[in-house]
Amino acid sequence: MKKLINDPNAVVRESLEGMAIAHADLINVHYQPHFIYRADAPISGKVALISGGGSGHEPLHGGFVGLGMLDAACPGEVFTSPTPDQMLEAAKAVHGGAGVLNIVKNYSGDVMNFEMAAELANAEGIPTLNILIDDDVAVKDSLYTQGRRGVGTTVLAEKICGAAAEQGYSLQALADLCRKVNLNGRSMGMALTSCTVPAKGSPTFELGDREIEMGIGIHGEPGRQRLTLQSADDIAQRLAESILEDPPYTRTLREWNLDAGDWIEQELTNPPLRAGDSVLAFVNSMGGTPLSELYIIYRQLAKICQQHQIQIVRQLIGPYITSLEMQGCSITLLKLDEEMLKLWDAPVKTPAWRWGI
Amino acid sequence: MKKLINDPNAVVRESLEGMAIAHADLINVHYQPHFIYRADAPISGKVALISGGGSGHEPLHGGFVGLGMLDAACPGEVFTSPTPDQMLEAAKAVHGGAGVLNIVKNYSGDVMNFEMAAELANAEGIPTLNILIDDDVAVKDSLYTQGRRGVGTTVLAEKICGAAAEQGYSLQALADLCRKVNLNGRSMGMALTSCTVPAKGSPTFELGDREIEMGIGIHGEPGRQRLTLQSADDIAQRLAESILEDPPYTRTLREWNLDAGDWIEQELTNPPLRAGDSVLAFVNSMGGTPLSELYIIYRQLAKICQQHQIQIVRQLIGPYITSLEMQGCSITLLKLDEEMLKLWDAPVKTPAWRWGI
Repeated sequence: MKKLINDPNAVVRESLEGMAIAHADLINVHYQPHFIYRADAPISGKVALISGGGSGHEPLHGGFVGLGMLDAACPGEVFTSPTPDQMLEAAKAVHGGAGVLNIVKNYSGDVMNFEMAAELANAEGIPTLNILIDDDVAVKDSLYTQGRRGVGTTVLAEKICGAAAEQGYSLQALADLCRKVNLNGRSMGMALTSCTVPAKGSPTFELGDREIEMGIGIHGEPGRQRLTLQSADDIAQRLAESILEDPPYTRTLREWNLDAGDWIEQELTNPPLRAGDSVLAFVNSMGGTPLSELYIIYRQLAKICQQHQIQIVRQLIGPYITSLEMQGCSITLLKLDEEMLKLWDAPVKTPAWRWGI
Repeated sequence: MKKLINDPNAVVRESLEGMAIAHADLINVHYQPHFIYRADAPISGKVALISGGGSGHEPLHGGFVGLGMLDAACPGEVFTSPTPDQMLEAAKAVHGGAGVLNIVKNYSGDVMNFEMAAELANAEGIPTLNILIDDDVAVKDSLYTQGRRGVGTTVLAEKICGAAAEQGYSLQALADLCRKVNLNGRSMGMALTSCTVPAKGSPTFELGDREIEMGIGIHGEPGRQRLTLQSADDIAQRLAESILEDPPYTRTLREWNLDAGDWIEQELTNPPLRAGDSVLAFVNSMGGTPLSELYIIYRQLAKICQQHQIQIVRQLIGPYITSLEMQGCSITLLKLDEEMLKLWDAPVKTPAWRWGI
């Protein structure tokens, strides 16, 4: 294992220390339990937006803490869910009196722990809602998941909901917006190479010299199929078609109900993408794939969208939800309406992103 | 070779096509000869800033074309200098009547071709100056270079000089500023892994499972020494000390003299970094190293700077001058004065960077 690390078991802590020193103007880091939070938190009267999950996907989530995005991020160990006490302490640190929305990627550990944290926070008088992101069309159920996994749409939901929170959305309105973003987003990824979790020291999975994994998860969990190496155009085509041809996806999710003080189940359906839709097209590097290759993927994606009469009105191209040093990419298409578009364009200032300010 | 590409010989072209589609609001791409230029060029009365070099270092240089940075970038084939006709055509496309400054990384091919381009442009009535970047303390002379190589300071010079051009600096004032940035910047890099040029198809060099290359060049050219794998803290220490302990560096460079209409030689010396200096600290990924590891490097760099009473007043952490998918990092320390600091903070809007606007 060759990495720029010291102790394999201190990677998360030392990386957080580096972030804290580098971005002291934007964020603070609390240790034991670990969470990153806005330097100006709590912000009175603003709904606090929190996310989190296993480390190893940087800049997600900690790089997105700041004005116009998250109030706090809870990093677990690499590829391991954070714990309820992290989430609860983060909520207490950033709650500005208007409630807390947790954006939760759909992995069993994250869901369980964020649900426990929400129950504890509500019991302590912090109105808290959780919204799941489950946008990965590759597989239903996986090593880490019941239902579809949460991937690229998470990044977009954090930006769009962060802008809405900044503009004064109520807790319920913010939850409704986040659910809408999730229902309008679809993703699929692939890997050229594996990645190595520092504490383990060996690759998470093995791929042959001419093999690729289509539908890979962000922890290296298996996807749809293992194929012989394809051209970038063919890979883009497979990823894009999996998204574009994905039928309406219906599942039952549970959300906290503030009035009932309990979880309620609701059936939710993703509407399929249609000719005439406007989308944000997100081509993401899994970490080790250079930007130049992402543009080759984007070039083909743009052609395919045009063929399907889907108009790309915003794009995002780069390493934003990664799997350590894995080579590969994912595509996310998010159907945008006027509300989401305006919120996407709104100012942001975080360690990873800054625009409009 | 596993990459997200189609034809190994069409990588640069197809990547440019992807960029052109993705960023049509910011840039245009001209093909044969290839150059990327601002969508709003030429800008009347503004000095035009041009850079270029071999591809494979993205987002350098094309990702830095736009408001507050470059007017044009000339990409060569991967790790291969662009040609004088690219540079001349780019100059014609973006010249707004106030002259052209070429920022040239010190590699023999780039220097020769940018000098020829400057002579041609001056002969055609476009006042053109070239400033060299030669900031890599690792080695004097290398496979591709006479004198020190141009690396991380290039990114910083493009931002600082781009802001100055936007603010109306004259051609000579801009050249003086760029020379100052170069003399105040020092860099050193290292590699954990090699990289593969698509058209070659095999790794540029070989590194053993426990070997690292200290002082690596951005084309994988050899550095100072090959070592057994070290901890991140030891690597950061070696890189930082090479920079901090670098003595005054004196060499003779030639620059075009507009009055004489000829090249003149001048002796230039980098002042060493001293206690009390304010710096911009840039921790750069060679491409395949994840952000989390860069923060571990930055954590140690910040400690070392503090020990040397050098104050980090700005930081930059990410993959900005890369070597395809190479794993490793480089450190650049740029001594800042008030002028450079203000220009660093000025608005920028390019495919890779956007802030303040």
